[in-house]
Amino acid sequence: MGGDHGPQVVIPAAISTLQRHADVELILVGDESIISAELAKHKHVDMQRLKIHHASQIVGMDEPPSSALRGKKDSSMRVAINLVKDGQAAACVSAGNTGALMATARFVLKTLPGIERPAIVTALPTMRGHTYVLDLGANVDSSAEHLVQFAVMGSVLAELVDGKTKPTVGLLNVGAEEIKGNERVKEAARLLAKTDLNYHGFVEGDGLYHGDVDVLVCDGFVGNVALKASEGVAHMIRHYLREAFSRNILTKIAGIIASPVLKMFSKELDPRAFNGANLIGLQGIVIKSHGGADAFAFASAINIAVLEARKDVPKNITRHLESLLEGQGL
Amino acid sequence: MGGDHGPQVVIPAAISTLQRHADVELILVGDESIISAELAKHKHVDMQRLKIHHASQIVGMDEPPSSALRGKKDSSMRVAINLVKDGQAAACVSAGNTGALMATARFVLKTLPGIERPAIVTALPTMRGHTYVLDLGANVDSSAEHLVQFAVMGSVLAELVDGKTKPTVGLLNVGAEEIKGNERVKEAARLLAKTDLNYHGFVEGDGLYHGDVDVLVCDGFVGNVALKASEGVAHMIRHYLREAFSRNILTKIAGIIASPVLKMFSKELDPRAFNGANLIGLQGIVIKSHGGADAFAFASAINIAVLEARKDVPKNITRHLESLLEGQGL
Repeated sequence: MGGDHGPQVVIPAAISTLQRHADVELILVGDESIISAELAKHKHVDMQRLKIHHASQIVGMDEPPSSALRGKKDSSMRVAINLVKDGQAAACVSAGNTGALMATARFVLKTLPGIERPAIVTALPTMRGHTYVLDLGANVDSSAEHLVQFAVMGSVLAELVDGKTKPTVGLLNVGAEEIKGNERVKEAARLLAKTDLNYHGFVEGDGLYHGDVDVLVCDGFVGNVALKASEGVAHMIRHYLREAFSRNILTKIAGIIASPVLKMFSKELDPRAFNGANLIGLQGIVIKSHGGADAFAFASAINIAVLEARKDVPKNITRHLESLLEGQGL
Repeated sequence: MGGDHGPQVVIPAAISTLQRHADVELILVGDESIISAELAKHKHVDMQRLKIHHASQIVGMDEPPSSALRGKKDSSMRVAINLVKDGQAAACVSAGNTGALMATARFVLKTLPGIERPAIVTALPTMRGHTYVLDLGANVDSSAEHLVQFAVMGSVLAELVDGKTKPTVGLLNVGAEEIKGNERVKEAARLLAKTDLNYHGFVEGDGLYHGDVDVLVCDGFVGNVALKASEGVAHMIRHYLREAFSRNILTKIAGIIASPVLKMFSKELDPRAFNGANLIGLQGIVIKSHGGADAFAFASAINIAVLEARKDVPKNITRHLESLLEGQGL
């Protein structure tokens, strides 16, 4: 039970999840005494559907993945992933150290057959809804073949979780024309055109937020920089907007009058509603919540785990990959 | 005289530049009859400082660079760059096809000694002012050595144009820790630490807009995607903000009351004020304006050309590179 806030965030999120989904059971993994003490603060908790599983160690937020992997065999992260492996849990949700979570999940669960590299994927808000973007940072040197595997995984996600038929898949590039880009994206484009995926072509950085495609594929270095740059711009815009309204008494009055509208606007793009990235490509469901998530945001991440567990995303990725291999000899 | 709008934008921008800078002379390159007709619409133009240089061809906005290079020897773009080469102009400003402009500029002007690849650089707004980011798309596979050359060029720009002493230089990466990133950025970090540049370390995507450094260096693929994703987010936020204020009669009234504040806020982040990217690393100054720039934005691009010409940026890059080569044996 890691992240920046631990049980204070995870427990209220768990309780609201139980209220939202009547058929879901949750296991809280971490220090039993701390969890019990935190749980005691809440009333009317359905303890029939909420178990505690003790874990004695914690992986630090800045701890190197190798140290977590070797030295923290009883960390809450490791124990939770073990529960997924043993079939005692359908999914693991963690707000802990991303690198350690990925390394541990990969070591314990292994990748799916046909998937060489797991990826980090999340649904980003666009002008038309949302787009699944992957990889967001698990890999920093993805080959054309990896990009094709990412495309399959993203496509299965959009199909199962959002119920989209033949979701469109784009490749993130520096231009929309065929001659643009580096060798890897050009080769990935050639491979994707041969699959049964609904391949749409190259998409530029701004096309992501126009919602040009349902799934957008890129190398993890590029995806991570694009995501964080986007967060940075959004933060800067909010900063200047706040500053503009607090300049003097007149702008402050205008701000008070506009505040219900500004709040509604903020709610629409609330990053907390989009919290929860998928470590996809593993033999099990692992969802990474933002380290600084509050209870509302952490509940969004749990909700993603619930949806994916119901649809058995990993098994469907394997099924899609098999038909791809049979069909195109890829 | 290309771009999406041609002389209708370039000529008013030229006239306002003459009013702003009393010591600047401008040469308008393009179809003489069209330019003259457009000029005739304006009064009190100081024709002593405004020359027309005829060019019979136009490079199309979607024309491949190779076709422009081979087939358009009398295009306005080519003729303008020739004027820089011949010393008749101190800089060239174009709103035309970026790929063709880069290919032509590189062919005619050649790169500076010690620079293997020219880069596209622009000043992006941050929460603390602005940051020079390069490369924004001239190269899609930059080596560690190229990244170091970009760092030198960006540093000279920040020093000369903004008068910063020892500007800080960062490397765009997926994490701030030394172990993060791909081999290229790690190697570039090792090389940069050995130079006399004020190397600050790795910067993540959001750090760009926090204004962590004066100069931010990255491969052109990554930089282009980050820039366009940023533009996409900003566009999406404006879209949702507009939508929130136009929902019903009450939100519309709030919008009218807030509109002076919203306008002031928009002005602060006006992308037109940041128009003008530098094709840096060439033996001459070439500034690329956004194709869709209006007169105000195009004048911003001309202003960059004026500032760089006054400071003789290309010569200073060479000087800095020479001292680097002597000092570190790089």
